[in-house]
Amino acid sequence: MASGIITLTTDFGLDDHYAGVMKGVIAGIHPVATIIDITHEVGCYGVAKAAFVVAQLHAFYPPETVHVVVVDPGVGGERRPLLAEAAGQFFVAPDNGVLSQVYERTQHQVRHIDTERWALRPTSKTFHGRDVFAPVAAWLAAGTAAAEFGPLVDKYVRLDRTTPTFVEAGRWRGKVLNVDRFGNIVTSFPAELLDESPTDFRILAGKLEVLETASTYAKASPSTAFVIAGSGGFLEISINQESAAAAAGVKIGDSVELVFSQANG
Amino acid sequence: MASGIITLTTDFGLDDHYAGVMKGVIAGIHPVATIIDITHEVGCYGVAKAAFVVAQLHAFYPPETVHVVVVDPGVGGERRPLLAEAAGQFFVAPDNGVLSQVYERTQHQVRHIDTERWALRPTSKTFHGRDVFAPVAAWLAAGTAAAEFGPLVDKYVRLDRTTPTFVEAGRWRGKVLNVDRFGNIVTSFPAELLDESPTDFRILAGKLEVLETASTYAKASPSTAFVIAGSGGFLEISINQESAAAAAGVKIGDSVELVFSQANG
Amino acid sequence: MASGIITLTTDFGLDDHYAGVMKGVIAGIHPVATIIDITHEVGCYGVAKAAFVVAQLHAFYPPETVHVVVVDPGVGGERRPLLAEAAGQFFVAPDNGVLSQVYERTQHQVRHIDTERWALRPTSKTFHGRDVFAPVAAWLAAGTAAAEFGPLVDKYVRLDRTTPTFVEAGRWRGKVLNVDRFGNIVTSFPAELLDESPTDFRILAGKLEVLETASTYAKASPSTAFVIAGSGGFLEISINQESAAAAAGVKIGDSVELVFSQANG
Repeated sequence: MASGIITLTTDFGLDDHYAGVMKGVIAGIHPVATIIDITHEVGCYGVAKAAFVVAQLHAFYPPETVHVVVVDPGVGGERRPLLAEAAGQFFVAPDNGVLSQVYERTQHQVRHIDTERWALRPTSKTFHGRDVFAPVAAWLAAGTAAAEFGPLVDKYVRLDRTTPTFVEAGRWRGKVLNVDRFGNIVTSFPAELLDESPTDFRILAGKLEVLETASTYAKASPSTAFVIAGSGGFLEISINQESAAAAAGVKIGDSVELVFSQANG
Repeated sequence: MASGIITLTTDFGLDDHYAGVMKGVIAGIHPVATIIDITHEVGCYGVAKAAFVVAQLHAFYPPETVHVVVVDPGVGGERRPLLAEAAGQFFVAPDNGVLSQVYERTQHQVRHIDTERWALRPTSKTFHGRDVFAPVAAWLAAGTAAAEFGPLVDKYVRLDRTTPTFVEAGRWRGKVLNVDRFGNIVTSFPAELLDESPTDFRILAGKLEVLETASTYAKASPSTAFVIAGSGGFLEISINQESAAAAAGVKIGDSVELVFSQANG
Repeated sequence: MASGIITLTTDFGLDDHYAGVMKGVIAGIHPVATIIDITHEVGCYGVAKAAFVVAQLHAFYPPETVHVVVVDPGVGGERRPLLAEAAGQFFVAPDNGVLSQVYERTQHQVRHIDTERWALRPTSKTFHGRDVFAPVAAWLAAGTAAAEFGPLVDKYVRLDRTTPTFVEAGRWRGKVLNVDRFGNIVTSFPAELLDESPTDFRILAGKLEVLETASTYAKASPSTAFVIAGSGGFLEISINQESAAAAAGVKIGDSVELVFSQANG
């Protein structure tokens, strides 16, 4: 049973008609679909941001929700349109790595969408959000079986894994998964590290070396960066009501390091 | 009877997954809810802006609408989550004054939400929009009685009143309730003052001293600030197709004064 | 049969309550309407941008969709509120030319909305999005016949046509219909010109003289402006993953020229 919910995550911005046209295509095919805007502001060609956003969504959506991700600088070229099934939900996106964090953390299978069968006609070479992804999402939400959309494929683009890698004894390298609108730095280190007591690590992020931890924003020392267990399951670096990312000078995709104290003794 | 409508007013911005995750939580609990984005751009920690926005909404929404307001710098700390009932509608928000203008102008009662009973598990300490406010809103919209969510409370945070205060004979002090995207300055002086004829007052707002009035934007003199009866029931200061707020140099929360002419004779 | 879909295109921005209040008015009149945000960011008083956006929508929406366009610097003055019927859909907007591109490309008829009968009371002089356009849209979407809203009119504001004009042998003048968030320059030259082979024209747009063409973004030479058949049926000037509009220094409404090679031989 389809949930009838279609979420939209794109880099189309909010000034133009692009997202609105996609909604019209969906409404034309499946009038009772519930269309939910996640964000259209992942930044032009913001594959890394979209990869994080869509991986944060699915656990909070009903089964069979269709997540459409259109960040598609390769539109019209060789890159394939994909339909991924993971965590009981559907993901419709171009094959450019934008689903990497879903692939990385969830059992999944991936299909190559048959555009000959499913695309709107005429099919543009610049707007597959409208001509390919929207109609596929609408038909999926209306209950069409995933297998109808195309064959399973084994190979598809995966960006570098985000899970921390071992550097040397007591030293791990992670990534900035997101810088959010508050300037919080979401790292790829698991939040569970903060459950250990006493906390025995520090994080190096750009210009910041962060030793302090806090259980809530309000308990943090003023103007001091601290590590907190973020809502997405990762350690985050924050400064209460200031931008930690600006203080650190880091951006999405940058490396961060976690150093256990013993290693520095 | 619940209306099934849930409105969202937050400071989460439009780049991240936060508002989208809230919508997923709501859809999971109450799939037929109608979720309406009001704004996610009240500015980080923009309590004053959100307080104005939400107070402008309810008169235009059906009975039993649930208005969710998440501007929550104190998340995870001591501040309580609240459910207010006012004007036949529901307001779900943290107890930081963000509902002050609803309290100020409407009979209301306020409950302390029992998070032990209603929060998602596990409950984060940084994202109660997802873990507390969204589920409470969804259950409310689905018809759960307000009394189920927690006990009535007598004390809750109220920001300074916005109603004008007497300064001296013929001189009143008000506040900037909003600066909108057009640069209109919404004051807390009642629009009815313009019904009197002849108009016998001027308004001092930052660098501007405004004597002119206009009944419509089109009737105003070019490049001249004027007072107009705003759509929200307050006097506004505008410049036709320019920003009055930029000309005045005022922002939300600033003081403005209204001076009756007799007092200056 | 009404589709029940109402789209919103405004210059209200995303910070304020204006669009949210319109949605409440609609929900109060027609609770099962599907309200779809197209954009609230056409720019303050962005009539030209909105004119393009709304003309791009209708072909992708179900019959009887109601498109509401509120870019309304003349609100409260003499300009009339209009209901246009075109392409099997409805358009509700002020009479300031914002529907020009719909008029230009589609058979249509236009009615003058009787605000005495249809406006909310009291009716503000500054917010007809809420008081006039939202209720009319809601009643239309609920199935009220267009003829109920007011009489047909023969005269209404039409901006200059966007179709290219003849300059001299082999030389045509068009317009910039849109600059999108990627910096693509959407011209008013028909995309079909690229079907001809060999391509024998160049486009002059501000500082750019564009001779190269590409069938997809990915096939273009790096950092080089090229002409591509855009998704809206027009020739567009793009630079792969850069802003062609910034390189050209053009904005919406500017003139562009198309010159056939023979004319320069």
